[in-house]
Amino acid sequence: MRESRSVNLDLDSIARYASGCAILGTGGGGDIRVPLMIAQSAIAECGPVAVVRPDDLPDEALVLPVGSWGAPTVAIEKFDSGDEGRLLCEAAERWFQRPVAALMPGEIGGGNGVQLVAWCARMGLPLVDADGMGRAFPEGDMCAMHVVGVSPAPAFFADERGNVVTALPVDAFWHERIARQLVLASGGGIAGADHPMDAATVRTAAIQGSVSYALAIGDALARAGVDGILAVTGGRRLVTGKVVDVERVTADGFARGVVTIEGTGSDADRAVRLQVQNENLIAEEAGRTLACTPDLITVVDAEAGEPLPTERIRSGQRGTVIGMPCAEIWRTPRGLEVAGPERFGYPGPWVPIGDAAP
Amino acid sequence: MRESRSVNLDLDSIARYASGCAILGTGGGGDIRVPLMIAQSAIAECGPVAVVRPDDLPDEALVLPVGSWGAPTVAIEKFDSGDEGRLLCEAAERWFQRPVAALMPGEIGGGNGVQLVAWCARMGLPLVDADGMGRAFPEGDMCAMHVVGVSPAPAFFADERGNVVTALPVDAFWHERIARQLVLASGGGIAGADHPMDAATVRTAAIQGSVSYALAIGDALARAGVDGILAVTGGRRLVTGKVVDVERVTADGFARGVVTIEGTGSDADRAVRLQVQNENLIAEEAGRTLACTPDLITVVDAEAGEPLPTERIRSGQRGTVIGMPCAEIWRTPRGLEVAGPERFGYPGPWVPIGDAAP
Repeated sequence: MRESRSVNLDLDSIARYASGCAILGTGGGGDIRVPLMIAQSAIAECGPVAVVRPDDLPDEALVLPVGSWGAPTVAIEKFDSGDEGRLLCEAAERWFQRPVAALMPGEIGGGNGVQLVAWCARMGLPLVDADGMGRAFPEGDMCAMHVVGVSPAPAFFADERGNVVTALPVDAFWHERIARQLVLASGGGIAGADHPMDAATVRTAAIQGSVSYALAIGDALARAGVDGILAVTGGRRLVTGKVVDVERVTADGFARGVVTIEGTGSDADRAVRLQVQNENLIAEEAGRTLACTPDLITVVDAEAGEPLPTERIRSGQRGTVIGMPCAEIWRTPRGLEVAGPERFGYPGPWVPIGDAAP
Repeated sequence: MRESRSVNLDLDSIARYASGCAILGTGGGGDIRVPLMIAQSAIAECGPVAVVRPDDLPDEALVLPVGSWGAPTVAIEKFDSGDEGRLLCEAAERWFQRPVAALMPGEIGGGNGVQLVAWCARMGLPLVDADGMGRAFPEGDMCAMHVVGVSPAPAFFADERGNVVTALPVDAFWHERIARQLVLASGGGIAGADHPMDAATVRTAAIQGSVSYALAIGDALARAGVDGILAVTGGRRLVTGKVVDVERVTADGFARGVVTIEGTGSDADRAVRLQVQNENLIAEEAGRTLACTPDLITVVDAEAGEPLPTERIRSGQRGTVIGMPCAEIWRTPRGLEVAGPERFGYPGPWVPIGDAAP
């Protein structure tokens, strides 16, 4: 379990935090650019967002894990209204008949770690230093709460037009299925809140310290580039080279594909293939797995020094693929059942890239 | 406006009532067979269902219009659990923080007029002598409440597995869109409640007397066959003959098709084509419209003396196609905009088959 520090997200730190979220996004979780601009604007207008540890909240405080569903390829051109967070909170408060005390990223990775900062700023709510995934994953049940048996219901959804849905799925399978259909109803993306918990449950059911971890990664990237990330996360460089092929299809609300990277410089003659489903799931070379889910695989663009979301990857880009160890909960048998390679139809068993995330 | 009589639905009347619903279903609204058996069983166990006029209820009594969404082709082999009505009421009562006083058929036509009788029997709730369509229509906004501007929200959904959804669509378009995606999530069919109203609103926004009208039609059919229906409804016989062709496709949650009927006996040398989208929408002969939506078109099977739902029509069946006038509200400019031929992509203008439904 990571140490959880008391931090604020303000105009100074928000961009580095977002950058850390992008690294943890493993190419998915949604692009950070637009959510970052929206968060900067909200912080400028309403002030910084307090990041609180679950221990700082009363046991019974209502914590709402939030995020967006859909294909990142759609999210980059279908913007939020900015009002989704308020609609989600209203629906939750109507259901529970008590106020939402804090928001938590359902997944810290990518735009989903950033989007809620604007919501918190505008509603004056704190952000809990925890999350459901420690990274990004393509499906809603791939979260720590599901692994330990917290129900996704009631689950709330809101789109940019103001449509709001409260769902009581009987289990995680039906939660995913209903959510995915609502994504299609809303044209490819929708905001959601699920696995609502009291703070006491967050302490044991969520991944701790995720927000400060993302900020630490963003700080390290700004300070020392890829080497900084590797130092903070205990990760490894998998290959440095050039994207030579991108196969991509957006289907059933997901962005799927295969990205091929040919090594350059000291990696000349190497070719690494990334299997993608919203996120980078597997990195393989000549039939050998270099890293695979639930460990994190991120491509850092050589030119911009920033992680590349899967939907922006294109042939000709140069960068470094890094592998980073996942959070402890994904290393358990139940965690691997939920988010290991077999879950995605790849051969197992999972071979860890190193020790658990710090 | 039809005269609303005080009736009970008991083991004596329920089958004739269901038969009347099937006539008003214009081939859609879902098959009545399974809902009828479930209703008979519920009445046998829990007693008859009281049919009340909206005037019999206090102004503020909460009335829930209910029904099922989806393609009838799916409904004939995907059965309800029987618990959907209770789940819908629970969701509505949680939302409104007061009890549901009575159920109302969202559409009187087909199984949707019958299904709720079992729910009423088991929950001890009365059935309101009114409905939203006076027939069956393929889309949720094709109801009197929408014509006069009652919001569909909050709308409730429940499936046979126990999944429950409360939706706040911003308008009728989004209600339909969300509902249709939930139909797909649930494998082709789902129970729903929408346009919740107090009894005072039901008196002006719904079609009055629909339950007793269906019972009167069922009585007439049992007593005097097709001639009995025509006498009660003011309808006309369009053709008597044999089904010679059925083109059918189930797509996007709808059952669409074209049915061709060749005349026999005194109708020899005639050929009538029915355009179908869940319901029979248009009857045409040699390019001439014999009857069209919002008027009612129903095929009565010669052998069984019963109306044929569109999903059971097949080549070789013999029967009579009848046209019946629609309720008054569909004859208004706004009513025709919502459910006239142009709404379905057919050329207009609508030519009424006779005076408004009695």
